[in-house]
Amino acid sequence: MSKPAIITVHEPQSHRDFLARCRQFPPLFACTIATTATAQIPGVSAAGASTELIPYTAAADVEAIVHGRALCLGKIPENPVGPPSPVIITMAALRRLKAPFMVIDAGNRVTPKVPMLVAGRTPGRVLTESEPVPDAAGLFIEGVIIGTQLGRCGHTLVLGESVPGGTTTAMAVMEALGMAALGRISGSMPGNNQSLKQELVSRVMREKGVEKGGCLATPLDAVRLFGDPMQAVQAGVAMAASRYTTVILGGGTQMIAVAALIGALLQADRPEVFFSRPEQLKLLPEALGANPGNLGIATTAWVSEDENADLRALMAQLPAPVPLYAAGLDFSASRHQNLVLYEEGYVKEGVGAGAMALAAMLYDDIDNRVMLAEIEKVYEEIYLS
Amino acid sequence: MSKPAIITVHEPQSHRDFLARCRQFPPLFACTIATTATAQIPGVSAAGASTELIPYTAAADVEAIVHGRALCLGKIPENPVGPPSPVIITMAALRRLKAPFMVIDAGNRVTPKVPMLVAGRTPGRVLTESEPVPDAAGLFIEGVIIGTQLGRCGHTLVLGESVPGGTTTAMAVMEALGMAALGRISGSMPGNNQSLKQELVSRVMREKGVEKGGCLATPLDAVRLFGDPMQAVQAGVAMAASRYTTVILGGGTQMIAVAALIGALLQADRPEVFFSRPEQLKLLPEALGANPGNLGIATTAWVSEDENADLRALMAQLPAPVPLYAAGLDFSASRHQNLVLYEEGYVKEGVGAGAMALAAMLYDDIDNRVMLAEIEKVYEEIYLS
Repeated sequence: MSKPAIITVHEPQSHRDFLARCRQFPPLFACTIATTATAQIPGVSAAGASTELIPYTAAADVEAIVHGRALCLGKIPENPVGPPSPVIITMAALRRLKAPFMVIDAGNRVTPKVPMLVAGRTPGRVLTESEPVPDAAGLFIEGVIIGTQLGRCGHTLVLGESVPGGTTTAMAVMEALGMAALGRISGSMPGNNQSLKQELVSRVMREKGVEKGGCLATPLDAVRLFGDPMQAVQAGVAMAASRYTTVILGGGTQMIAVAALIGALLQADRPEVFFSRPEQLKLLPEALGANPGNLGIATTAWVSEDENADLRALMAQLPAPVPLYAAGLDFSASRHQNLVLYEEGYVKEGVGAGAMALAAMLYDDIDNRVMLAEIEKVYEEIYLS
Repeated sequence: MSKPAIITVHEPQSHRDFLARCRQFPPLFACTIATTATAQIPGVSAAGASTELIPYTAAADVEAIVHGRALCLGKIPENPVGPPSPVIITMAALRRLKAPFMVIDAGNRVTPKVPMLVAGRTPGRVLTESEPVPDAAGLFIEGVIIGTQLGRCGHTLVLGESVPGGTTTAMAVMEALGMAALGRISGSMPGNNQSLKQELVSRVMREKGVEKGGCLATPLDAVRLFGDPMQAVQAGVAMAASRYTTVILGGGTQMIAVAALIGALLQADRPEVFFSRPEQLKLLPEALGANPGNLGIATTAWVSEDENADLRALMAQLPAPVPLYAAGLDFSASRHQNLVLYEEGYVKEGVGAGAMALAAMLYDDIDNRVMLAEIEKVYEEIYLS
């Protein structure tokens, strides 16, 4: 039995017409890339073929979109076991949709050879340091400026990410914002090393003296103390853009963390305390005027139906109602063994793959079979030629 | 007698419906900023209140658009005599049109505190050095990547610039591409120091052993040897975007130089000789597939009717037919003496002011009177409060 093309995983009453509204305007894809040194902790990330290659992953992904190959590596990273980067899904969707895309730089160790919208140039530090993202407030405001302009383009804005190690920082941010996230996040390996990640997050929170929900009153502290640069930028982009257009946060666990951050910011009593500079305070209303009805999340079915995670439980805890949809991608019938590995729990998501596949299915009314053929074509071009 | 809102300065048969086609799609404004050390030669630029402030001009302009004030200076530069930066015209038009905008960084000495699409980070050297823009080819290709994505947004793309000293590099590039530009360019001072600029350009060409038209076969050499970083980026953006949508080059003399570069590239026998890296050669067809019918130039009437310049003579010499329109801005009735100075030949153009004013007039069907009132409002807000 085949999966439906689009799975409605979680859809609050307030968002019943969300996908129909998205479909009224063509998609514009913006992918925010960042480094978090958290990915260097053994067992946290399966991106790249080895620990040394992890910092190249995000750069390689966006270079693949622009140049058809990873200029920084000569080869696009693959999971050590062999399955390719999810960027091939994103590329297949972009080609099909002829959609415009932008790369947003939130802070990377390796700078890709593509023109980027620069929100920040400082890579995120490891979760165990005192401040992994010291200027979370500044990054958020840069995101707000970008989001206003992208939102005004009037397209449905699809926001992807490439942040190796990002599901661990997502779990930490959700916990700091009061959600029960331990053991519920998805990740890029079968089984997902949940216990290692849980233990890490619990230990760091204990060491920093922050209880579950301890950052609810000052939500950007969750990013400053436990997060990665992408989260701050993405929240700013999404909030500002939602004033003008529908916004799809493309990703699973990581985007639920961004949605949690947005919800907490909208409910914070004194969101202004985080911003010290007059020009930041002046732009803050562009974020706080966000239209939550214009926000949704999209991922892959590999994430939404991941038995080692519980996305539905995470969605139910979000402070503001947001829908979650999944592209019913299924690679079990692929002629490439490395793609079939996705069905065993490898990779699952990244570079906005789920949201862009869903967009292709939504706008072009195609199913998994057609989509898989397009993805295989890109895979052969990128990895086998 | 009042000027018409929109003046058709030069309109080849091939572009009779150009403005009507532009009007079908809402505007997206992208402003490319760059430094050329040529501006530091005494007498070349009147941007900024003094030679020391010139490198801040471009940064201050785009900070004004985003933040309402120049963060890098505390004050937006004005011409030494008092007339304000043309960015107030651009801001008035952007507000009226609620148009999205992007800043493209082509290489600046002062980095503005706004998120930018980075095409390059190396400021242009002075015209008299051996290679003012060593990587003109690389900048051009970055522009091509940006242009493809902006073009795919499906808006009419309005391309502005802020490059103090840029009319001198424009004159030099046009001469190197075989146009008789000496004495015909416009500039930001009454009278425009034509003889100083002419002498400079003639001397530098002589010193580098390049005759008039000496770069026609390898057009990017004109930028490499005599130009500024904006020109290379802008040509790439415009060419790639024109495959997808109508493109308005916003500026006078400087954009005629960009149009000359585009025309020469499209007619060059072996445009590929300029590009050494495989990824550059792979992207080149996106530029060479440019649709010249989608390209036009727009400026202000202060430039198009400048008695010390001859824009019509320049337009007539372009290798490929391009139209030139002017916004009939007239500040003679302004209640602010510093705005009335525009009528005496100060400032005239910059930051896409002419093209954006024309866009406001075109899309909103307003005249100079309405536009002036909006510009005065921005002027009071920015300079007098």
